[in-house]
Amino acid sequence: MRVKLLIAYDGTNFHGFARQNNLRTVQGELEACLSRVTAAPVLIHGSGRTDAGVHAREQVVHWDQEHGPPVEKYPYVLRRILPPDLIAIHAEEATDQFHSRFSAVGKTYRYTFQTAPVADIFTHRFTCHSPGRLDLQKMREAACHLVGTHDFTSFCAASTLVEDKIRTIFDISVKESGSYVSLYVTGNGFLQNMVRIIAGTLLMVGQGKFTEQQVIKSIQACDRRTAGWTAPPSGLALWQVYYEESNLWLAVKQGFE
Amino acid sequence: MRVKLLIAYDGTNFHGFARQNNLRTVQGELEACLSRVTAAPVLIHGSGRTDAGVHAREQVVHWDQEHGPPVEKYPYVLRRILPPDLIAIHAEEATDQFHSRFSAVGKTYRYTFQTAPVADIFTHRFTCHSPGRLDLQKMREAACHLVGTHDFTSFCAASTLVEDKIRTIFDISVKESGSYVSLYVTGNGFLQNMVRIIAGTLLMVGQGKFTEQQVIKSIQACDRRTAGWTAPPSGLALWQVYYEESNLWLAVKQGFE
Repeated sequence: MRVKLLIAYDGTNFHGFARQNNLRTVQGELEACLSRVTAAPVLIHGSGRTDAGVHAREQVVHWDQEHGPPVEKYPYVLRRILPPDLIAIHAEEATDQFHSRFSAVGKTYRYTFQTAPVADIFTHRFTCHSPGRLDLQKMREAACHLVGTHDFTSFCAASTLVEDKIRTIFDISVKESGSYVSLYVTGNGFLQNMVRIIAGTLLMVGQGKFTEQQVIKSIQACDRRTAGWTAPPSGLALWQVYYEESNLWLAVKQGFE
Repeated sequence: MRVKLLIAYDGTNFHGFARQNNLRTVQGELEACLSRVTAAPVLIHGSGRTDAGVHAREQVVHWDQEHGPPVEKYPYVLRRILPPDLIAIHAEEATDQFHSRFSAVGKTYRYTFQTAPVADIFTHRFTCHSPGRLDLQKMREAACHLVGTHDFTSFCAASTLVEDKIRTIFDISVKESGSYVSLYVTGNGFLQNMVRIIAGTLLMVGQGKFTEQQVIKSIQACDRRTAGWTAPPSGLALWQVYYEESNLWLAVKQGFE
């Protein structure tokens, strides 16, 4: 049977999602707990990797098992044995055609800056502290140029080995709440550090250190050195993963078309 | 010169406020950083200790120094060298009569329960997850009996060595925001685990597992075994310390009188 599980994690103390020998990772912790629960080795597949320090409000994983508790009980069973920074939200049986990564049609990431003079102790783990007001209008104008299908070479880690760097961003929303400014970036796929470089670049635009014209030129240049700062992982969270059946996803897509 | 500093901390990874050999504590970390900044050993005094895992939104400390940076610069200087879970908010020069502990006339602690079925990953460190609705009306009615001057023997750790267990609670507010229920407990002083036992007991009242009558009897009994559960440290934060000059404090006191 194939099980689809929705999880959330505080990425601060994980060396990213993907399993690594002798390092604490989300995949490693979850597989160890699932192997205990099912009394058999479990290999999970995630909708995508998140880097060290990056959080997830909703990450989707799946695995195949022969035995295990009733699927809907997984969140309760796992709650007792998972560490407190890794939460199982919801489980359901999936068809054999379902694949957490290959069935995904899009994702939303959130990046949050905290602009108050002094960081708030209750949110510091999940934000990037950048004291001082940001010009949201300028950030929104610059963000418009990133929306669409582009070669995002300038907006991914220079070391990235993936050849095809063409991705589609469907939407970038810039939202303010008190002293927090969040970017919600929705796309069909993301390159390494892509959201962090977009966030760092738009932050510089909001600070008046980078212009809308520079963003336009940077997209065309296909050269990492022409874009802005790579914002730190603490401010980034995988917000939502979309599969074809989702109404929310259809709404996002309609807004784009 | 005496310096008064307002700090905040995420208590999760500290073994409490008070310095302990070979353990990571708030006092230990802060003294080490201040000694670097002033190039001399610094001993700080806090408004009170907080236990392992307990947070502070506003803790007050003071120390005496012969040399150091301009006082108002401390938050900026410390920001570069303090760990991310310890934040310097504001510094000012204090008179020689000021003492962070002995000049304090009262404190507010906040205890927060999260009542959603699944814990929120972004707040789990600062709350106690207790799924299920709480009867806030019952909690408020029971809390009224704790307000006032009482012997709080039933509401402090049985191992407490302090002889005088009479304290005055000026106010307990029970506030709901979304799936969070917070208790704000304001008093002139607190015994060990006192707010955590009050929180745990009022939680049980809200769940229908403990009655208003039991709370009244427990106060009279002066026996720890008659009160409720000791809620975990994660949900507790030192919210505010009051000194005589504070308008807020005068308002709290007037409300009580």
